[in-house]
Amino acid sequence: METYPSKLLEDAVKELSKLPGIGKRTALRLVLHLLRENLQVSEALAGALIRLRQEIRYCSQCHHISDADTCAVCSNPKRNHSILCVVEDSRDVLAIENTAQYNGIYHILGGIISPVDGIGPHDLNIDSLEQRVREQAIEEVIFALPATIEGDTTNFYIYKRLQNYRLRFSMIARGVAVGDDLEYIDELTLGRSITNRTRYEGPLSK
Amino acid sequence: METYPSKLLEDAVKELSKLPGIGKRTALRLVLHLLRENLQVSEALAGALIRLRQEIRYCSQCHHISDADTCAVCSNPKRNHSILCVVEDSRDVLAIENTAQYNGIYHILGGIISPVDGIGPHDLNIDSLEQRVREQAIEEVIFALPATIEGDTTNFYIYKRLQNYRLRFSMIARGVAVGDDLEYIDELTLGRSITNRTRYEGPLSK
Repeated sequence: METYPSKLLEDAVKELSKLPGIGKRTALRLVLHLLRENLQVSEALAGALIRLRQEIRYCSQCHHISDADTCAVCSNPKRNHSILCVVEDSRDVLAIENTAQYNGIYHILGGIISPVDGIGPHDLNIDSLEQRVREQAIEEVIFALPATIEGDTTNFYIYKRLQNYRLRFSMIARGVAVGDDLEYIDELTLGRSITNRTRYEGPLSK
Repeated sequence: METYPSKLLEDAVKELSKLPGIGKRTALRLVLHLLRENLQVSEALAGALIRLRQEIRYCSQCHHISDADTCAVCSNPKRNHSILCVVEDSRDVLAIENTAQYNGIYHILGGIISPVDGIGPHDLNIDSLEQRVREQAIEEVIFALPATIEGDTTNFYIYKRLQNYRLRFSMIARGVAVGDDLEYIDELTLGRSITNRTRYEGPLSK
């Protein structure tokens, strides 16, 4: 355990290193950087973090991060409100939005079923998902959860809950990433990519 | 450029990604983590950073980070106050202290001479170094600055400033790190390690 020359320094390092992926060494480097910069830099950072945490709101429909009651996706009449993509968290929405390939809406579960971590169906936004399916004209549910046992369990749980509604269920394609060499792909992914092969319709980069 | 679903989120990501080594993606991951945690976690982090920046003090002797007027090293009568090690910043002091191999005192320059970055001798704690040499019973100055052109320039500048005092000058050994394979060492380091070879006195790990 390192000893720090100052309690203030130690506290700042301790708090920063609670963040995921930030170790004591990195935290120390960041803290010493802040000490070299003006007070305004630290104040802007601290203020932005506090304001975010105090004032952030979530979309009342899909639970995505939002500055208003309804997020930009849910309130956009140009989106296709009959296709709903189920994701784990807001980061997944940002990732899919970045592709500019999806025009439907989302539903954020806020996690996945994981008995090991004590997360059951009732800790997730599944009731509100069923309510949306019941009340809105949703025709297709796309599962975009992680390809893990927990993800599969969650997919199946939701499928069972919603199977009495008139819905199509689909899941995002698993396969060889564009640009990847076949020899480096794990066997499960490569196997699935052959089983679930798609019709060839000319080059991808058209 | 990514678009964020919330201005609050965007601001927090923007401020966090000003930190060295933190990109937009990492900042987003950290921010989403804070959103999942209690408000207290964000408040503790923000508070620690602000308190650090507002209340931090520097040792009036060596300029090391300190909670008091004089740091724990400078105020320790058991340290050898006749040997002074010149370093770039507080991180270097922490690194050397971690070795538990040095019992002298330090002087922190707060940077190194770098004309490209517009840092000259007068931007560094060199006047106070000369004052200490003049007023205190310092016998040896150890240079522990980076092995770069800027580090060498700074070493030489300080050497010229202090050469009329009765001092021994030394610099930390450059050589092959303990445990490193010779074949992976750069030629400059390997060359120096042969030129500056030391007497063999039995295994290092005794």
